[in-house]
Amino acid sequence: MPDAEIIAVGSELLTPQRLDTNSLYLTDQLNALGVEVVRKTVVGDERERLTDSILGAAARSKIVVLTGGLGPTEDDLTREAVAGALGRSLVFHQDICDGIEARLRFFGRKMAEINRRQAYVIEGAEVLPNARGTAPGQWILNDGVAFVLLPGPPMELKPMFEQQCLPRLEKLLPPQVIRTRWLRVVGMGESDLDQLISPVYKRYANLVTTILAVSGEIHVHLRARCALAHEAETLVAQASAEIEPLLGDRVYSCNGDSLEQVIADLLRARGASLSVAESATGGLLGGRITAVPSASDYFRGGFVTYSDQMKIRLLGVPAELIAEHTAVSEPVAKAMAEGARAGTGSDYALSITGYAGPEGEKVGLVFIGLAAPDGSEVRRVQWPADRDRVRAFSTNIALDMLRRRLLDLKP
Amino acid sequence: MPDAEIIAVGSELLTPQRLDTNSLYLTDQLNALGVEVVRKTVVGDERERLTDSILGAAARSKIVVLTGGLGPTEDDLTREAVAGALGRSLVFHQDICDGIEARLRFFGRKMAEINRRQAYVIEGAEVLPNARGTAPGQWILNDGVAFVLLPGPPMELKPMFEQQCLPRLEKLLPPQVIRTRWLRVVGMGESDLDQLISPVYKRYANLVTTILAVSGEIHVHLRARCALAHEAETLVAQASAEIEPLLGDRVYSCNGDSLEQVIADLLRARGASLSVAESATGGLLGGRITAVPSASDYFRGGFVTYSDQMKIRLLGVPAELIAEHTAVSEPVAKAMAEGARAGTGSDYALSITGYAGPEGEKVGLVFIGLAAPDGSEVRRVQWPADRDRVRAFSTNIALDMLRRRLLDLKP
Repeated sequence: MPDAEIIAVGSELLTPQRLDTNSLYLTDQLNALGVEVVRKTVVGDERERLTDSILGAAARSKIVVLTGGLGPTEDDLTREAVAGALGRSLVFHQDICDGIEARLRFFGRKMAEINRRQAYVIEGAEVLPNARGTAPGQWILNDGVAFVLLPGPPMELKPMFEQQCLPRLEKLLPPQVIRTRWLRVVGMGESDLDQLISPVYKRYANLVTTILAVSGEIHVHLRARCALAHEAETLVAQASAEIEPLLGDRVYSCNGDSLEQVIADLLRARGASLSVAESATGGLLGGRITAVPSASDYFRGGFVTYSDQMKIRLLGVPAELIAEHTAVSEPVAKAMAEGARAGTGSDYALSITGYAGPEGEKVGLVFIGLAAPDGSEVRRVQWPADRDRVRAFSTNIALDMLRRRLLDLKP
Repeated sequence: MPDAEIIAVGSELLTPQRLDTNSLYLTDQLNALGVEVVRKTVVGDERERLTDSILGAAARSKIVVLTGGLGPTEDDLTREAVAGALGRSLVFHQDICDGIEARLRFFGRKMAEINRRQAYVIEGAEVLPNARGTAPGQWILNDGVAFVLLPGPPMELKPMFEQQCLPRLEKLLPPQVIRTRWLRVVGMGESDLDQLISPVYKRYANLVTTILAVSGEIHVHLRARCALAHEAETLVAQASAEIEPLLGDRVYSCNGDSLEQVIADLLRARGASLSVAESATGGLLGGRITAVPSASDYFRGGFVTYSDQMKIRLLGVPAELIAEHTAVSEPVAKAMAEGARAGTGSDYALSITGYAGPEGEKVGLVFIGLAAPDGSEVRRVQWPADRDRVRAFSTNIALDMLRRRLLDLKP
């Protein structure tokens, strides 16, 4: 199966403000055909550097997708650079020019002289008409390499790729099937996890395994690409059957669902309700729970108690408990969760109290409480991280404590 | 002035889910030194392709920054690839290994055998200690090219770059002065803003102006690079003096401060306190307010009232008000804010109630309330956006309402 590279053209993509996001869409589309994207390059509107990028990509990969640089201005150089790199000329197409003029006229505008630049096509290229803009795309096969030139705006690029490039790519490629499985894990470090499962995945030569740390969770992606569907399915199933028992109940989802979505499903299935009491996280836990549509089915609400006084007043935490143990302590975390449960009448309640920092000698110390019909528990965590991560990671632990309780797993 | 290239290493950055965002930060930092980033490359965890990228970059540019691939696992190949590309060996450093072991022990973990990989340093490289993770960075000058190896996690990369790479880069570069001004604007669309100010900034040939839409706000960045400090300062000051009056009190900060930071300063200066009552946003507003360190100086806390019952019970919203107007209405937003203010005893309170979607005929309709010593107000907003944006944008409006009230600006 041939590999692909994506070259995003445009000096604005080399500023601190802009990212090339077209490549995510294109990667998804190419992956679905069984094509791997092996390199992405961003290069500015500079003829020599662009030519160099095109030649490099063509020497390495069989599919080269270029996005952007097809506009009418002088810094739009993709047409010229590809033509130059392939030693081909540019040919003026009167029909394209007429189309651009008609399009602009339809929108009440007169065609500027510079728009004529967009009517030049690389010798031997197929024109990819653009229903949503003035810049047509181009498709050229040259020495066994397919070059695809697409306009930068996503609303022009996407329909052009789906309607005109996919059918052409499918003709080039051998039939392939891809099957994947996403394991999402919480409560374990990346290197520990890798040490545990790498002896297994290394034995599967045709399986691509990716391990990714995301905001305190680990995502394991298994991906098989085969000629036949049942081959790919068998490969993924076999590897999963070996890997999942090693990770055990730390795997919280196998289909890409988020932790808050898993909690949502568990609570809905049990007809149970939830509330929260947050100090250090200031509302992030509630914000995350309510990122799931229709969270009101099970989420009652909660309390953001950022001061001692609010913990006492809103959650009924005894003042003497705070005086004795401080607000960041196991008994206070427990009292906060129980106070939220009592105050909202929910079945379950989660609490978070801790030192998010950025300064102070106890930074990263967090207590997370769970109040439930079958009793309360508190976990103590010491994070090595900064304020943003202490807060984000703590919401993981809280949701995972609830997940484990709902599934009757040991804490 | 030498150019730079950035190579982001990691197969996960070649999936449809992940972007290399470190390069935005690095570009900003390099630009501030007067260094242009001329190419960005993303390459997977594959030795040969990585080596090829390193050799290509070094042949073109004098500064090559590599991010990622410094972890402990076998697919972390940056150290090996750079060493190989430069024909240098890797040397084991016992002191780095001891440091990793001590760090992991502090967090109650045992060092895995594979962590030893992170103690290998390219022959002749300077070690860049990592205060926030196990992977040290590396700095090597080779044939006039500076290679900088940085860990992928932003919280490890950023302090390492600022504290250890900037001083080294400054020594390499000719003196240049850059002066910038960030105008942050809320309550206005990107194209309206551009239409308003583009006649001004287009007259300044040596000023780089960038307009950026970020989560419902607009950031305008003015940037002058000159040989002398007073030239750059004059240029930025002149342009600002023309642009700022056009934007008026929609500009909430001129120094890069976030809206929540501006609110923090205003409340602190007045010795005033704040609380929140959130429905649709489920805690995001509180989460954002408490993203500012020491928010406890002015933030009392709040209520996440996701059901009608909780609005009645926790905030004292009259049941008949909800029955008559529904929970998403001006009177209920007002009663929520006033209930939060009364319940916490704060000077100010903000409330948000709305339909975040994703479905329903009133999706995007949000009421935002402010209760204050000098009276309450409610704003009605109809967003054209999806669930995530409805929620995020609504927190902007809430904070901006408070800003305007604190500054005695008209609503």
